[in-house]
Amino acid sequence: MTKPGIPKGTRDFSPDETARRNYIFDTIRTVFKRYGYAPIETPALENLSTLLGKYGEEGDKLLFKILNSGDAFAGITAPELDNSAALAAKVCEKGLRYDLTVPFARYVVQHQNEISFPFKRYQIQPVWRADRPQKGRYREFYQCDADVIGSPSLLNEVELVQMIDEVFSRFGIAVTIKINNRKVLGGIAEIMGAADKLTDITVAIDKIDKIGMEAVVEELRAKNITDEAIQKLLPVLQLTGSTDAKLHALTGILSSSATGMQGIAELRTVFSILQPFPLAQTVEIDLSLARGLNYYTGAIFEVKANDVAIGSISGGGRYDDLTGIFGLKNLPGVGISFGADRIFDVLSALDKFPPAATETTKVLFLNLGTQESMRALACLRDVRAAGIAAEMYPDQTKLKKQMEFANKRKIPFVAIIGEEELQKNTVSLKNMLSGDQQNVDIKALIQSLL
Amino acid sequence: MTKPGIPKGTRDFSPDETARRNYIFDTIRTVFKRYGYAPIETPALENLSTLLGKYGEEGDKLLFKILNSGDAFAGITAPELDNSAALAAKVCEKGLRYDLTVPFARYVVQHQNEISFPFKRYQIQPVWRADRPQKGRYREFYQCDADVIGSPSLLNEVELVQMIDEVFSRFGIAVTIKINNRKVLGGIAEIMGAADKLTDITVAIDKIDKIGMEAVVEELRAKNITDEAIQKLLPVLQLTGSTDAKLHALTGILSSSATGMQGIAELRTVFSILQPFPLAQTVEIDLSLARGLNYYTGAIFEVKANDVAIGSISGGGRYDDLTGIFGLKNLPGVGISFGADRIFDVLSALDKFPPAATETTKVLFLNLGTQESMRALACLRDVRAAGIAAEMYPDQTKLKKQMEFANKRKIPFVAIIGEEELQKNTVSLKNMLSGDQQNVDIKALIQSLL
Repeated sequence: MTKPGIPKGTRDFSPDETARRNYIFDTIRTVFKRYGYAPIETPALENLSTLLGKYGEEGDKLLFKILNSGDAFAGITAPELDNSAALAAKVCEKGLRYDLTVPFARYVVQHQNEISFPFKRYQIQPVWRADRPQKGRYREFYQCDADVIGSPSLLNEVELVQMIDEVFSRFGIAVTIKINNRKVLGGIAEIMGAADKLTDITVAIDKIDKIGMEAVVEELRAKNITDEAIQKLLPVLQLTGSTDAKLHALTGILSSSATGMQGIAELRTVFSILQPFPLAQTVEIDLSLARGLNYYTGAIFEVKANDVAIGSISGGGRYDDLTGIFGLKNLPGVGISFGADRIFDVLSALDKFPPAATETTKVLFLNLGTQESMRALACLRDVRAAGIAAEMYPDQTKLKKQMEFANKRKIPFVAIIGEEELQKNTVSLKNMLSGDQQNVDIKALIQSLL
Repeated sequence: MTKPGIPKGTRDFSPDETARRNYIFDTIRTVFKRYGYAPIETPALENLSTLLGKYGEEGDKLLFKILNSGDAFAGITAPELDNSAALAAKVCEKGLRYDLTVPFARYVVQHQNEISFPFKRYQIQPVWRADRPQKGRYREFYQCDADVIGSPSLLNEVELVQMIDEVFSRFGIAVTIKINNRKVLGGIAEIMGAADKLTDITVAIDKIDKIGMEAVVEELRAKNITDEAIQKLLPVLQLTGSTDAKLHALTGILSSSATGMQGIAELRTVFSILQPFPLAQTVEIDLSLARGLNYYTGAIFEVKANDVAIGSISGGGRYDDLTGIFGLKNLPGVGISFGADRIFDVLSALDKFPPAATETTKVLFLNLGTQESMRALACLRDVRAAGIAAEMYPDQTKLKKQMEFANKRKIPFVAIIGEEELQKNTVSLKNMLSGDQQNVDIKALIQSLL
């Protein structure tokens, strides 16, 4: 028999890892709830007709497709084997969700008559992508999304920035929240005289951090963007100074673009509403920020950890026609997504997981005989009723083995009931870290564990 | 464009439903943790080699298979289309997990060197079955499992019964916990002289509740079980009275079967350990209880709601060789599983969901102007810092529309900051249920909401 394994790009999570991950989800969930976001869940299985065409050609290839149940190949003829994509579409009607955004749009359209808009929802569920697995990239991973749909107000953008600030402050991670605006990018392309090349321009400038300014210029040239146009772009990318200074300079540069000026006004509004409420984290304008441009129509967000090099750990933006793909037009939305896996890596790198996140059992009762274990069961009942996680070693084995078990499991206290304790109606409570041991009654035992 | 939908047998969960479901999961999780069970998670995607053959021939057909990514049909020849099952196995290497037990066994074998045994783990995750959807049966649903692996002690059985008792007591649901023992069933088959027909016998008697005794006898005859054997079975099935009385009578009936006597001794031990610790729920021996017999080797558990007819809402048992299928022999285990969907239905039928389970936003700040909303943002900050879920209506629309929104969302309080409140630095707090309204400062507002 071969040793069992799991598919490439998937993971098992041990108790320690699961507890740490739950700490991450719980923290994010607490903030989402505090801000009035309500939870929904959608199925892992979606109709492929819902998913296909929503993530570009590349995305379609990354969808996990589910073979129809029953006799999936009934009626398939030999020539159909020559067109793999068409055959896959025929024998697979369902797929695994690729992100939470498209299922959310589908949900909103399907349930539009039950929903009170503006609808603030959060969703914390796994997604699947048939991507090539590599370090930090998985085929099954969680997304933690919060979106407001049905409100054009920039107060939503403000709130999302405050939520990002609060989440990372709770984690004790220092981050920089970067903000851009799709309309500003549109304005830049306009003044370059290259409005039709907005995608090429933003794809290129999005890489500045990775490949540097010179390589970006090369890439723009390769996309047939003129040197004259590039000369107009450079000062925008080289803007420095405070947010006010950047906005001021940008106003001069983009004055001839109505779209660009609208984007500047939106940025100005968001920053001016944020201003009286000091954030713990840094917030700055980053004009090179583009992300999933095809989707976003206004604000664009991205969050980077200041002290760990790991790419973005949260991001989002405004999309003004997400539900249009399912036939419900003109419903503006804005949202953010937290990347639990990268946040896990950052918390690990900075050693910021609180010890309580992995604390499980507080006290292990040893099992030293039948009568002794009956007394331990009675104690366990009281300890658990006091809200303390507790267990008894189930088998009557050597004391040494039971103590080793407590050590390996990192259980902080061991409760011993032997002959003497049985007679005196007490328990010996041993602190496994300090080695201290005291003989106490059940009340005192509970007191020391609370 | 057709209205978007979701696959048959799957569900969307609205905020109210998700909150109620989370209440169920949280309650079960709290009890699991309190008893020292540690969480693990395994991937939704498993290798089909892990899953196939573990659930019987019928189960294999109910596995959702994932089409290999890339060109799944490359190299497939026309004749292979004639054997759908073989072709599916060739073009699908992965499948969706069917339950949590087999992935758990796979996990234990794969990670045996990291685990401290006895290993108490819980796991709350969705599973998928390509079953025919019908009322109360879904293709995607959650299981909530707790298992102890690596301990033969009957203290584990006792603990699991106590946990079932505590879970349903927390839910406020009255249930009957039924216990049987596979060895007793084996003994019954032995004294019938039909040890080789154990499966037929248990499958038949498992149906007593549904089809009645006479139909069961018919079924046994159809399986070539002699009338003489059936005459020996009937008194067992007609046992009544207290647990002690049942065990006493059973001891007489099964005295010639060593296996049967072992099963009786196990039942007796479990009940005698439970005895000093009164349970809130009813616990009784049910000799017709068989469940997934092929799997269980000792105790068998099943839980039924007393006041709602819905089938079993929890179940489990001891299996002494679960990891054997993956090459790790002689590792005894025992576990239970809670059916979240049926528990949801029972809580709904009995109207037992606590109101707090669906409480989301406690107070909505109305948006009555730019200056007013800035003041509301300042208040929101303080309210949220006090741990209260709060939000502001993001758009400046008519007061009536905003009040209607609060009503539809069932938000219990509305905070109004108009011109007057702005001048006096106060907030008008309206109780949406009573209609009471008072003008208060932010401190008093927080006090009334806590």
